[in-house]
Amino acid sequence: MMDLGFATNLRNKIILSYFIVSDELTEFALTGDHKTFWIPGDYDTNEYAYTTSTLSKIDATIGRAADEIFAKTTIGRNAVQSPLMMKTAEALYVNIFEAALVDYPAMNLEVNQQTFTLTAHLVPDAAGNKAYLQTPAKTPWRTIIVSDNAAGILVSKMILNLNEPTKLKDVSWIKPQKYVGVWWELHVGKTTWNYSDTENLKLTETDWNALKPNGRHGATTARVKRYIDFASAHGFGGVLVEGWNIGWEDWFGKWKEEVFDFVTPYPDFNVTELQQYAEKKGVKLIMHHETSASVSNYERRMDEAYRFMKAHGYDAVKTGYVGRIIPRGEHHDGQWMVNHYVRVAEKTAQYKIMVVAHEPVRPTGLHRTYPNWLACEAARGNEFNAWSEGNPPEHETILPFTRLMGGPMDYTPGIFQTRMDYYNTGRKAQVHTTLTKQLALYVTLYSPIQMAADLPENYERFPDAFQFIKDVAVDWDDTKILQAEPGDYLTIARKTKNKDEWFIGAITDESARTSRIPLDFLTPGQSYVANIYADARDGHWEKNPMVYNIRTVLINSRTTLDLKLAPGGGTAISLKPATAEDKKKWKEY
Amino acid sequence: MMDLGFATNLRNKIILSYFIVSDELTEFALTGDHKTFWIPGDYDTNEYAYTTSTLSKIDATIGRAADEIFAKTTIGRNAVQSPLMMKTAEALYVNIFEAALVDYPAMNLEVNQQTFTLTAHLVPDAAGNKAYLQTPAKTPWRTIIVSDNAAGILVSKMILNLNEPTKLKDVSWIKPQKYVGVWWELHVGKTTWNYSDTENLKLTETDWNALKPNGRHGATTARVKRYIDFASAHGFGGVLVEGWNIGWEDWFGKWKEEVFDFVTPYPDFNVTELQQYAEKKGVKLIMHHETSASVSNYERRMDEAYRFMKAHGYDAVKTGYVGRIIPRGEHHDGQWMVNHYVRVAEKTAQYKIMVVAHEPVRPTGLHRTYPNWLACEAARGNEFNAWSEGNPPEHETILPFTRLMGGPMDYTPGIFQTRMDYYNTGRKAQVHTTLTKQLALYVTLYSPIQMAADLPENYERFPDAFQFIKDVAVDWDDTKILQAEPGDYLTIARKTKNKDEWFIGAITDESARTSRIPLDFLTPGQSYVANIYADARDGHWEKNPMVYNIRTVLINSRTTLDLKLAPGGGTAISLKPATAEDKKKWKEY
Repeated sequence: MMDLGFATNLRNKIILSYFIVSDELTEFALTGDHKTFWIPGDYDTNEYAYTTSTLSKIDATIGRAADEIFAKTTIGRNAVQSPLMMKTAEALYVNIFEAALVDYPAMNLEVNQQTFTLTAHLVPDAAGNKAYLQTPAKTPWRTIIVSDNAAGILVSKMILNLNEPTKLKDVSWIKPQKYVGVWWELHVGKTTWNYSDTENLKLTETDWNALKPNGRHGATTARVKRYIDFASAHGFGGVLVEGWNIGWEDWFGKWKEEVFDFVTPYPDFNVTELQQYAEKKGVKLIMHHETSASVSNYERRMDEAYRFMKAHGYDAVKTGYVGRIIPRGEHHDGQWMVNHYVRVAEKTAQYKIMVVAHEPVRPTGLHRTYPNWLACEAARGNEFNAWSEGNPPEHETILPFTRLMGGPMDYTPGIFQTRMDYYNTGRKAQVHTTLTKQLALYVTLYSPIQMAADLPENYERFPDAFQFIKDVAVDWDDTKILQAEPGDYLTIARKTKNKDEWFIGAITDESARTSRIPLDFLTPGQSYVANIYADARDGHWEKNPMVYNIRTVLINSRTTLDLKLAPGGGTAISLKPATAEDKKKWKEY
Repeated sequence: MMDLGFATNLRNKIILSYFIVSDELTEFALTGDHKTFWIPGDYDTNEYAYTTSTLSKIDATIGRAADEIFAKTTIGRNAVQSPLMMKTAEALYVNIFEAALVDYPAMNLEVNQQTFTLTAHLVPDAAGNKAYLQTPAKTPWRTIIVSDNAAGILVSKMILNLNEPTKLKDVSWIKPQKYVGVWWELHVGKTTWNYSDTENLKLTETDWNALKPNGRHGATTARVKRYIDFASAHGFGGVLVEGWNIGWEDWFGKWKEEVFDFVTPYPDFNVTELQQYAEKKGVKLIMHHETSASVSNYERRMDEAYRFMKAHGYDAVKTGYVGRIIPRGEHHDGQWMVNHYVRVAEKTAQYKIMVVAHEPVRPTGLHRTYPNWLACEAARGNEFNAWSEGNPPEHETILPFTRLMGGPMDYTPGIFQTRMDYYNTGRKAQVHTTLTKQLALYVTLYSPIQMAADLPENYERFPDAFQFIKDVAVDWDDTKILQAEPGDYLTIARKTKNKDEWFIGAITDESARTSRIPLDFLTPGQSYVANIYADARDGHWEKNPMVYNIRTVLINSRTTLDLKLAPGGGTAISLKPATAEDKKKWKEY
């Protein structure tokens, strides 16, 4: 049926309607060889550690910890990712990024290391084109945020507000929450995603009930009940379960299309029994859909998978995109995948399902348009600390200036047992943090959904410190950036939504520091009781990470706190109005 | 989540489980510079006209009528498609093809024009690989059929039988049938697929009810009722309707992903009213799913589309794949699409839906495994005669030796009004046939589903000739290849399933010929009444195509027929046991 087609085609040559974007030539001309906090330009991953250098010293071919990332497609020596955070010699802070990335590929930046001009480098598709557009078409905003102080960058809501308001009429089903789950135990090697150690299985041909269990499967009915009990006892709304569904024996690194079906549990995971148990305990199970980046497979099965979720009481899903994309030749950050993530946000909204996406393109404020898209990973998360050279202590002081400019991050903080040799002697990996810094992250790394990522057993070893995670809010109506310097330190105070309660997080890089914090943002004349979770005097992220002091004192808006942060450490504080009894019981700071 | 992945990955290097096929080196070493009937090697289309030449003279860069095909990806001067039909100087007939093409790309053939060795050339994917396999894996059969007479090639059932038997328990819902439909009138330009002439529309944003109708839309409720009445009156089981659903204004040549939704009718097409009307008339509507080759879009919507079909009384679908494939970079004949066609066959079977696929990879006998996959186009069909330089008179004498080796073809014969200037003065296109040759094609081009492709109005102009189309069977239990020479002529007799009725089709190329046909395959001693639909003495495909004679005579197994075929002509014969009345009424031949 070619002839009419040709006719139409010819008519189309007259008026621009459908066109291919072969390249974008946007440039950002900078005034000097600024200091930058960069990760290598890449089409498929943003899970790199940051390097701090001047523009002229950028060498993306030595991106830190790159060898720990399987599916990466670097661009070249002088290409870095956006958001790009910079600091000029005049101490101006400059952030270059984009907003409202829809139906278009993500933007990397090529650095001219002589002229300091940045040129857009869009992620191409399988055919080598950048984008396919139909008029009228909008390309994403290109954003430049400049401030004479670092806090000014974090205060900006420009990127969020450049996105469209949501079209959802009813958002009452979207609930900020904290969750625990069968997850960290998988990363530390205590249990496994896979039910069996048999490999080379076929989704539709294998008799999954006949497989020999490896005896280390994490997502068992009994184990999940343990998490449900723990969540219920400590007031957590959600329990994430990874490794519940068939396919994990071959899930990784095969570029396999028919890898998961998203609806068939392993023989030792009883969906109905757990649905009833969770309901009884007032807890919601959080579904996990690891696609293994086989997105054509996921798109075929999404509707059935979401119907399955709703039929079994799930109203939140964590998606995952580990590996090389199928359709083959496409990339995580290309137009086709950008459209996929949005499609997931729209389709889940139809089912009233909340989404947390791991390994997607980095966010650009679309959570304004799709509020059910609660958070993304889209950066180097805490998990890397479990089995790689990890995230340097400065990492969490940089993330808010880069990755978080686009939206909330599911960083999964709250790791109390920081040394991995606790699980296996000889295991070198270690979370680059003190215990109380992990508490501070609940305040410094914003997300409406926060995981208490460590094992219940570990929280039970430190009930006093765990109290902060139980208390800390996830929904806020005021935020104060008290101290900020990317790569060095960050102190943020946030006010619980509709309550005169505040939470403060202060973190530092590998250097110890004293942080002076005037509390003049508090209600004048109001006395507050403060629980201060601080590093012990001899605390140190590497040598002595799990020592801390907890003090309770009375403070008010005239109080100035002096917080001592250990190397790689942090302090977390909860504040609430002091009762008469508090005033008797506790001393002034 | 990289580390476990790597471990798994490493283990995989020990035992071959998942692997990539970078190339296949199969060779067919021929003994000489054989005569071949070839079309250019191509990754995306098989809709070329055949060229007859020796192997050494093949020049695929001048594939005939190639400029009429939009989405083509030719391979090179010396590459041709399989099945490749050849004839040696010693008059040996050689056919090289493949069987059971599943989870693997189609095979083209590169011809060494000095040594006459053919080398497999597989269709690559978007990443440049040929196939992704998991052990245990089977590759398709490579088939060589050799015969000292041309008929021997057509008699072979090897390719069919190299395919797996069906796994379907119940096949009672699969019904061979003849159908009419809103189709040829679209090709001759009488009506249009599109409802409006407005372009640059968006599937989900356009108000389709507010569009200005062009007044020439074919798939209107009234027009479809006319077809239903006609089908009902003349005993046709099905009515195909193309252009019923929104999206046709922009359907072609845009490489557009969100092009059709397969469930939303145009404002002037009333699904429910037509469902009731067809049911009342004892006719089944045949659904049309043109994907515009946006297969990622179709796969997302297939389930909903099939549920929509069943809810509205449709149990057969014609699929279409016109254009460049999405996922972009994939090809019609690559592994990913090969898997898609099979997925459609499997999924439709779950819904008890029969399928006819247009513009898919050419079939390789899979209708044995998927009997609901009734037929494919997958070659240059009759439609090209409506608007292109068309199909030369020899075309249908070659198809059975090439395209049809793999399975039934929905060629859509039965065009009575052969000159297109009948519809628009000055329109040059013409079907390269006489009227009665179109009748013969129902016998010579096997398919369990056959269209009476011309307009009802045209059949009503020639009710005597139309009688053959009404009578001819589509389900057979015996076949005799009476005369065959690829490129020249073909005469086939087929016996109606479970009846002592026969139908004979005899066709020729551009040369007139006399065809002597001994009827010794008939039941000895049985007298048959024969209706012979023959070209008129002065018939000629170009100069005088629509003249014919119809004779009724008595014949038996000792009769030898002399059929005079006009240039580009043919003869069709129906035979059934003579009644006593017949014997009185009609003369012996």
